[in-house]
Amino acid sequence: MKMPTLFGRINLKVVATFTLAIGIWFAPIPEGLTREAWHLFAIFSAAIFAVIINALPLLTSALLAGSIAILTDTIDPVKAFGGFANSSVLLVIVAFLVAQAVVKCGLGKRISLYVVSVFGKSTLGLAYSIFITDALIAPGFPSNTARGGVLYPIVLSLAQGSGSVPDDDKKRRLGGYLMFCGMASLSVSSALWLTATSANPIGVLLAAEHGLNITFGSWLLVASVPALVAIVLLPLMLYRAFPPGITDTPDAPQAARKALREMGPFSRDEWITAVVFVCMISAWIFAGVFKLNLAAVAIAGLGTLLATGVLNLEDIDLQGGTLATFFWLALLFALSGQLNEMGFMGYVGEGMASMLGDVSWPVAYVVLLFLYVMMHYMFVSQSAQVLALLGVFLNVGIQAGVPAHLMGFALLFASSYFSTLTPQGGSQNVIFVASGYLKQSELYRLGLMTTIFCMVLFLLVGTPWILWMGA
Amino acid sequence: MKMPTLFGRINLKVVATFTLAIGIWFAPIPEGLTREAWHLFAIFSAAIFAVIINALPLLTSALLAGSIAILTDTIDPVKAFGGFANSSVLLVIVAFLVAQAVVKCGLGKRISLYVVSVFGKSTLGLAYSIFITDALIAPGFPSNTARGGVLYPIVLSLAQGSGSVPDDDKKRRLGGYLMFCGMASLSVSSALWLTATSANPIGVLLAAEHGLNITFGSWLLVASVPALVAIVLLPLMLYRAFPPGITDTPDAPQAARKALREMGPFSRDEWITAVVFVCMISAWIFAGVFKLNLAAVAIAGLGTLLATGVLNLEDIDLQGGTLATFFWLALLFALSGQLNEMGFMGYVGEGMASMLGDVSWPVAYVVLLFLYVMMHYMFVSQSAQVLALLGVFLNVGIQAGVPAHLMGFALLFASSYFSTLTPQGGSQNVIFVASGYLKQSELYRLGLMTTIFCMVLFLLVGTPWILWMGA
Repeated sequence: MKMPTLFGRINLKVVATFTLAIGIWFAPIPEGLTREAWHLFAIFSAAIFAVIINALPLLTSALLAGSIAILTDTIDPVKAFGGFANSSVLLVIVAFLVAQAVVKCGLGKRISLYVVSVFGKSTLGLAYSIFITDALIAPGFPSNTARGGVLYPIVLSLAQGSGSVPDDDKKRRLGGYLMFCGMASLSVSSALWLTATSANPIGVLLAAEHGLNITFGSWLLVASVPALVAIVLLPLMLYRAFPPGITDTPDAPQAARKALREMGPFSRDEWITAVVFVCMISAWIFAGVFKLNLAAVAIAGLGTLLATGVLNLEDIDLQGGTLATFFWLALLFALSGQLNEMGFMGYVGEGMASMLGDVSWPVAYVVLLFLYVMMHYMFVSQSAQVLALLGVFLNVGIQAGVPAHLMGFALLFASSYFSTLTPQGGSQNVIFVASGYLKQSELYRLGLMTTIFCMVLFLLVGTPWILWMGA
Repeated sequence: MKMPTLFGRINLKVVATFTLAIGIWFAPIPEGLTREAWHLFAIFSAAIFAVIINALPLLTSALLAGSIAILTDTIDPVKAFGGFANSSVLLVIVAFLVAQAVVKCGLGKRISLYVVSVFGKSTLGLAYSIFITDALIAPGFPSNTARGGVLYPIVLSLAQGSGSVPDDDKKRRLGGYLMFCGMASLSVSSALWLTATSANPIGVLLAAEHGLNITFGSWLLVASVPALVAIVLLPLMLYRAFPPGITDTPDAPQAARKALREMGPFSRDEWITAVVFVCMISAWIFAGVFKLNLAAVAIAGLGTLLATGVLNLEDIDLQGGTLATFFWLALLFALSGQLNEMGFMGYVGEGMASMLGDVSWPVAYVVLLFLYVMMHYMFVSQSAQVLALLGVFLNVGIQAGVPAHLMGFALLFASSYFSTLTPQGGSQNVIFVASGYLKQSELYRLGLMTTIFCMVLFLLVGTPWILWMGA
């Protein structure tokens, strides 16, 4: 990746970013906001802007934003660095390292060969196998980040097994398509089950405050139709939006079966990896019951893989990219959290709601949903947006006459499917983003398309279904 | 490095480690300690033991210890992960990344060539060139290993330029002398600046738990006199202890000037790096006055070097080793901190203090310092010893009546200068040891001499200076 330079040649995009930051910083502070909240908004919006227009890589943007926020006394260092110690962030980073083992020992190759031997006649078949696998295992994974950690090595093996590599602009397309399918799949499988992501139970709690009683079963019933339609259509839509180049792989299933035979029985490292993953996934599933920390489970898994020599220090030495991910994720996570804590998110939500005025409820419903989804551009965490805005938006919707269960479910489902809107829109994206198969501009383009596609689909298919089920 | 395996062949060292952990865990809990404190001691001591006997690498040991401590409910995840968000830990990690720029852009080579062109007429002059270069660049290199990477090629070219080769027993002596000067220089330059080695900020944090407030500036002030005296005397002492054979190197300055001419004027990247480092070091020096967070300053520096293209994402991609350091440092730091918070350090301190009996504080001071330094024979990592023992020794000293700032600074400086005690006493030694210019027996002999010399010097010169500065 060619890096922009501040000196030598003047980079207009960087100048635009700093102009935006300074412009907001010195603009009059809206009533109801503190100086710190406004200044943090200036820094945060400029950081996201810089990434969106490709002025700076995520890492550089996050480092500058984080350090400027601290050095200008806008936020406290303890708060700014809190993201590094956040369990969800650590889970992502460690899952990244652990995932290597599945690839290295050959287990990922074996699973992918099996999947290919069954579904692998076409690239589209591979994509559907990702979506179906994900949807089936989702209810057992209250963390979609952890689920991403399981899916990623399989997706990577599928891509590599089809000869796709990130460095070759032509060959990377198949891998890029499958990687985005992984992200998109997580965004809809999370909407399908109440227990498929940590943001769902939080949202259900908030909805209960407005009189909605949602159970595991009622969630599944209401979500089933729109989510399953999305699972059927998304692989096709993405296939058009980002043609993978290779479409038919007619010999793939037989070749896969042959390769499986050549792999022979499970090796020692494959057994250890399989046992470690089964233990880790079991611990994640029962984490709630036994009060286990998800990140600690992953760290124990990584420690075991290192102690048994399945992974070694040389493998870790190659993971500098994971360090970069750790930094930008932790810093942006903390900045976004502070923006919420300082009341900025609530302020914006309330302002937009009051602007709605006396419109009819269907208009209010669509407008609120659209605003709620688009505001995810500003969030690096789904849970943070749910905590900041779901209650406000639901309240405004009910006051504008939207049926409570319609507004509630629409916002809850949106909180899952909007995760692909930006590469940092859900921590589960990160592992796929960092694979290098997709460019930042492609991620934003496909993310917006997928999110809009899901929003329209959930509006057109979901709305009558929710109304009927709720009647 | 060959990794131990739990399966396949039984690794006796790993078995011994787990036996130790389980033995302590189920031993009767001493009166005055909580169950959690005792269990954490079992986990922490086994982790350090595993590293000392080379059963597991630091990273593996720290991952297993950290996750076991959390999953057994011995410590809270929030506390266990706190090290990742700690400013000192982040300072070390970010400065590791920043230091690369000095090597990459050629600024490090230019500085050393300049010093040689001025001081390089004699073998002793070459030795001083090494010490002076090292002392000058040290504040920007919190990794003395990275600094060793800058010094080593210069030392090697000086040795080779003077006709010294490892294979000829007579000709190798000049090279051997310069190589050991490189190791000795790193051991005192690290004591001179707070940011010259990763163990320093960690030690400062541990000292803060005992009421010591040490800043970048106050460290420099207190360290300056004993460290500069050591820099003046060490080349002479080693010159007697290991006569280099050749005493005059009349051609070295001219060769350096020629190489400087070939480098041409400062490149764009060298200018940017120089400006960024001058700004960073200035900000660190005045951090106390302007209330700047040291880590945020380093993060701003790294962001600037990335934004200007001096460093790029590919450089970060190679820093997986830094990620490994981040993990073990953060986890062991948190465990050590919790051991202290749970009262274990105080308990051991009281026990050792009562064993010291009613000796006067100067005796306790010397005995504790001597024991602390000699115990480095058991450690392969300076940071590991600081994390394991500095807090305990400081606590014992304070309880025996030693002035806190005297005991604190003496232990902090010792944690730098004891690195030459064994060839594996600091990872920065390895590159010089591997040059082949010195035999193992020579390394141990010179290492003990250098360490004792520094200890006596810091006791005789450092003690009155520290007491005066602290008054």
